Amino acid sequence: MQDVLSGLRIVEGSAFVAAPSGGMTLAQLGADVIRFDPIQGGIDYRRWPVTENNESIYWHSLNKGKRSIAVDFKSPEGRELLTQLITAPGDDCGLFLTNFPAKGWLADEKLRVHREDLIYLNLTGDRHGASALDYTVNSRLGLPYLTGQGQANEPINNPLPAWDVIAGQHIAIGLLAAERQRLRTGKGQFVKLALADVALATMGHLGYIGDVMVNQMARKPIGNHIYGTFGRDFKSRDGGRVMIVGVSANQWQAILKVTDQTEAVAKLGKKMSLDFDREGDRYLGREEICILLEPWFANQDLAPLTAQLEAAGVCWGKYQTVSELVATDPDCSTENPLFEEINQPGIGTYLMPQNPLSFTAADRGPVRPAPRLGQHTDEILADILGLSGSEIGRYHDAGIVSGIVSGIVSG
Amino acid sequence: MQDVLSGLRIVEGSAFVAAPSGGMTLAQLGADVIRFDPIQGGIDYRRWPVTENNESIYWHSLNKGKRSIAVDFKSPEGRELLTQLITAPGDDCGLFLTNFPAKGWLADEKLRVHREDLIYLNLTGDRHGASALDYTVNSRLGLPYLTGQGQANEPINNPLPAWDVIAGQHIAIGLLAAERQRLRTGKGQFVKLALADVALATMGHLGYIGDVMVNQMARKPIGNHIYGTFGRDFKSRDGGRVMIVGVSANQWQAILKVTDQTEAVAKLGKKMSLDFDREGDRYLGREEICILLEPWFANQDLAPLTAQLEAAGVCWGKYQTVSELVATDPDCSTENPLFEEINQPGIGTYLMPQNPLSFTAADRGPVRPAPRLGQHTDEILADILGLSGSEIGRYHDAGIVSGIVSGIVSG
Repeated sequence: MQDVLSGLRIVEGSAFVAAPSGGMTLAQLGADVIRFDPIQGGIDYRRWPVTENNESIYWHSLNKGKRSIAVDFKSPEGRELLTQLITAPGDDCGLFLTNFPAKGWLADEKLRVHREDLIYLNLTGDRHGASALDYTVNSRLGLPYLTGQGQANEPINNPLPAWDVIAGQHIAIGLLAAERQRLRTGKGQFVKLALADVALATMGHLGYIGDVMVNQMARKPIGNHIYGTFGRDFKSRDGGRVMIVGVSANQWQAILKVTDQTEAVAKLGKKMSLDFDREGDRYLGREEICILLEPWFANQDLAPLTAQLEAAGVCWGKYQTVSELVATDPDCSTENPLFEEINQPGIGTYLMPQNPLSFTAADRGPVRPAPRLGQHTDEILADILGLSGSEIGRYHDAGIVSGIVSGIVSG
Repeated sequence: MQDVLSGLRIVEGSAFVAAPSGGMTLAQLGADVIRFDPIQGGIDYRRWPVTENNESIYWHSLNKGKRSIAVDFKSPEGRELLTQLITAPGDDCGLFLTNFPAKGWLADEKLRVHREDLIYLNLTGDRHGASALDYTVNSRLGLPYLTGQGQANEPINNPLPAWDVIAGQHIAIGLLAAERQRLRTGKGQFVKLALADVALATMGHLGYIGDVMVNQMARKPIGNHIYGTFGRDFKSRDGGRVMIVGVSANQWQAILKVTDQTEAVAKLGKKMSLDFDREGDRYLGREEICILLEPWFANQDLAPLTAQLEAAGVCWGKYQTVSELVATDPDCSTENPLFEEINQPGIGTYLMPQNPLSFTAADRGPVRPAPRLGQHTDEILADILGLSGSEIGRYHDAGIVSGIVSGIVSG
């Protein structure tokens, strides 16, 4: 945790990746983020990867640094408690984030009765409020047809739920922007965000939509090349592989120099009537350029090869599996201040990241693990809602709230 | 533009995707974002996709809503002007964002002399300050080996520069968080962010690192299945294709019901000793489940098929190319309030997105196109730096600043 946002409090009712990662971003920057869940856990509480005890590494990874309150919000009393929590008074409170439907007791007008300057951010699947997931959004965008070699017109899905992660960051931005405005105008507001719109907007920002509308371009899959410039993977003699990129003039010259192909590539450019000082022309000549470069990579082992790339200032990256990343990459270890080895109750000790932003005027505390479900129920009811010990006990007895439930819940 | 951040000013010196998209996010939320560039344009000014006149759709898409000042910052006078601009006084100013090296005239201590409470965010490739691009970061993470069917151990790159986009959102969050803190403490600060750290942190947040460290799991590529739950693509009789997901119980039941496979799948579960009410078990039985479901999809055309999916409440998405998305999807048209058809000077009229966040307490103005390079040079020098017309003229004559350069610059 870094304390750049200390003092700010957000209540979160969420599931899956996007909304929880938005809340976690704010928690890792020092905000007090309170996630509420049903007593047995929400719909994402057993999401894979899980341990052999069916504890979710996924859930715990996405809820680091939050507090947890477990409430039966099918009951009217549970809803009343959460309504109080969401709309609790205070200048730095009154921010609510959810991907649950903004209907019934979670309708904006229902909550806003209790706090007029509430900042309420609601994430939906699409703009009509229908459900959509990263995978059903991604299929619509055309990217799976541009992935890989495009053999037999078979689309290839992205294993990274990129839209979820990007939406999570939008959520953090939306809350911070609305809170900034509230401080200046006194006004709260309802903020809407649809996962599908995040993806569509990004396709516009990256020029995909313009390329079709202005150029009538129907892009084809190009394997591991980079669109519009020079970049591709190359294999070493011992089966290693590197990604090489020559976007800038310096990067491009470094590639030619280290592979000793400056003259041969210049000759190729003349033959193809292309000017490889222009990155677009490097793209047009990419296959022929790669044929010239391949032998240099294929004729030596990975270690000496990458040492030369490094010395020559080539922009390169090694291909490795996730297991290799974890086992051997110093940047994925406590050598990198980004990471700490933390004990996650219920899971065990493993490497957990901070938020990658690093602030010189904020104190950097330890990475905080995820809460156990219901771990902070009593302290939240006492400290924020001001309930007495006997009142809290009554809610427990009635099954409306719960602390940590031990043992394994199947799901 | 929405005016939720109106009043805030950020100066940006940037190139490529991450830093420009961070600035654009703030610009589309109403901040005054001033991008400075060399007089002939920066390293990304001709990045593909380009028009037939070599105008970059990419550059213009990533700089919507900003102001542009063109300055020769190889000259001492140009550096002095930009230093003044970056450190100009005012409560809502003094925020600087760059992915240029924080060295020389852009060293934090050089700039901070002029404004002690400057908020300076610097994006680097990796944490050591070395260059890295989305593609060279992605190869290290293991995701290319988990993409597609994994035939012959060939990694497949992601055509979406997801890490750049995610880093851009982190940049916006970092600036807003630091500005919030400055308002409360009076302190400015230097904020560091490395593209590689953004990617590594995300791998941690999504459970990839924990799955290796806790479970010793070496994931294999699984084609278009979703890890840990039920989801895959299915082909229709007429060559259409849909992505189907059954994460929640409701989604799963809807799939079984619409395909009329409830009983057959229950029988399969018994045979495999799996409980398909558990999403992890659905994942373990994914291949066998798909065999049962496939005929329903393969025996009908896409239109009636998707109508039934919709009616049954199945969570699904259609596969389409980018061209089909632009030509036929109502969400990628002005029917969606996210988009407007805007004339981009230099490029033409095409569909441009707003920021997908929608605020009820902020006025929604039109989507603003990108500036022409140098379009706002004179007004910025006059209004922010207080230069007189004759002083501005002298800078022009000396070639230190420039307005819009007409004609085509090759690059």
